[in-house]
Amino acid sequence: MTIAAESRRLCVVLFDGFELLDVAGPLEIFGALPDRIQIEMVGPAKGAIRSAQGPQVVADRGYREASQPAIVLVPGGIGSRQLVADDTFLEWLRNWASSAELVTSVCTGSGVLAKAGLLDGYRATSNKRNFDWPKSQSDLVDWVPRARWVVDRNRWTSSGVAAGIDMAIALVAHLYGDKIATNLADRIEFEWHRDPSWDPFAVKNGLVPG
Amino acid sequence: MTIAAESRRLCVVLFDGFELLDVAGPLEIFGALPDRIQIEMVGPAKGAIRSAQGPQVVADRGYREASQPAIVLVPGGIGSRQLVADDTFLEWLRNWASSAELVTSVCTGSGVLAKAGLLDGYRATSNKRNFDWPKSQSDLVDWVPRARWVVDRNRWTSSGVAAGIDMAIALVAHLYGDKIATNLADRIEFEWHRDPSWDPFAVKNGLVPG
Repeated sequence: MTIAAESRRLCVVLFDGFELLDVAGPLEIFGALPDRIQIEMVGPAKGAIRSAQGPQVVADRGYREASQPAIVLVPGGIGSRQLVADDTFLEWLRNWASSAELVTSVCTGSGVLAKAGLLDGYRATSNKRNFDWPKSQSDLVDWVPRARWVVDRNRWTSSGVAAGIDMAIALVAHLYGDKIATNLADRIEFEWHRDPSWDPFAVKNGLVPG
Repeated sequence: MTIAAESRRLCVVLFDGFELLDVAGPLEIFGALPDRIQIEMVGPAKGAIRSAQGPQVVADRGYREASQPAIVLVPGGIGSRQLVADDTFLEWLRNWASSAELVTSVCTGSGVLAKAGLLDGYRATSNKRNFDWPKSQSDLVDWVPRARWVVDRNRWTSSGVAAGIDMAIALVAHLYGDKIATNLADRIEFEWHRDPSWDPFAVKNGLVPG
């Protein structure tokens, strides 16, 4: 088990219409490690950002004032459809995230990363009910239809919504060891899927044979 | 399958140090039904409220300005320890919630409901790692050590954190039918535990024999 002494800054990219659980699921895990991971919420501007589900979450900083991230987390949600048409945002994201230690996404967030060029030449996955949408954002990505999450070098992309919790726990296991990760899963009474190839939703949505 | 035509107001009780996923998990489910469920976030005052994990969520109204709720949701989190010592809050909660159609809690939120007298004579459950704490809030509650969630008349109480997602889906099934509930679980790629007696965490925490 490896314990890193230094603290890492995790920056979460909020936008109007982000999927609430794509953000809150991983943050429930990462937020339990305040000595190791500092959370910074970034958005179009400092202040409240409305989720696709209605409730608003607060951005600590605007995109242009965002700190240099160690870990980037891009959620999905219906608002991602607008983001991929925003060249100014995409250019900012590409420049800002490219030197991060880890670049991660939940659900259709991988479509945003793909459109920004941050997954060029990488294997990645996404939401299984709307898998064609992220695929349509880039043909330079090796899209994996059956996966709870995919790790390719320093890119971690998860399948839809709840899969982000499994990926976050796996990421904690990768960075800080299995014991800490298992303790966090047990603390929130979450049945952690440890196997990144576990994916009944790829079958349910007809992406792979049952 | 019963479909209610009317919309219900779901009021979520935020407080400083609420558990992020206790709120966001159920809201990911309820927030997918905007024609049936309207969400109102209430807090000590209108504005940003900090979660135990750090990120802030916005309260639409202060407690005193809260609308009459159809469904009340009280989350847990470390901040619940202060709430149970706040008689003014407890009296407000008791009066405000007592006429709701459904009173629900996630995790140690049931300790808050218990202290407010809202579970007197009811069966209820709570977080399994700190089960003694909610129990210590009231001996007028029939505390159930092994349960993912407990339904007793119009009181729905779930076990720790992630259990709130299972309970929320079950509540949607109860109100709007199994087909809609299953569709919501599949949409977020969540392996829904349909059995309220499923509870490996009661065993892991030594509350019942394995």
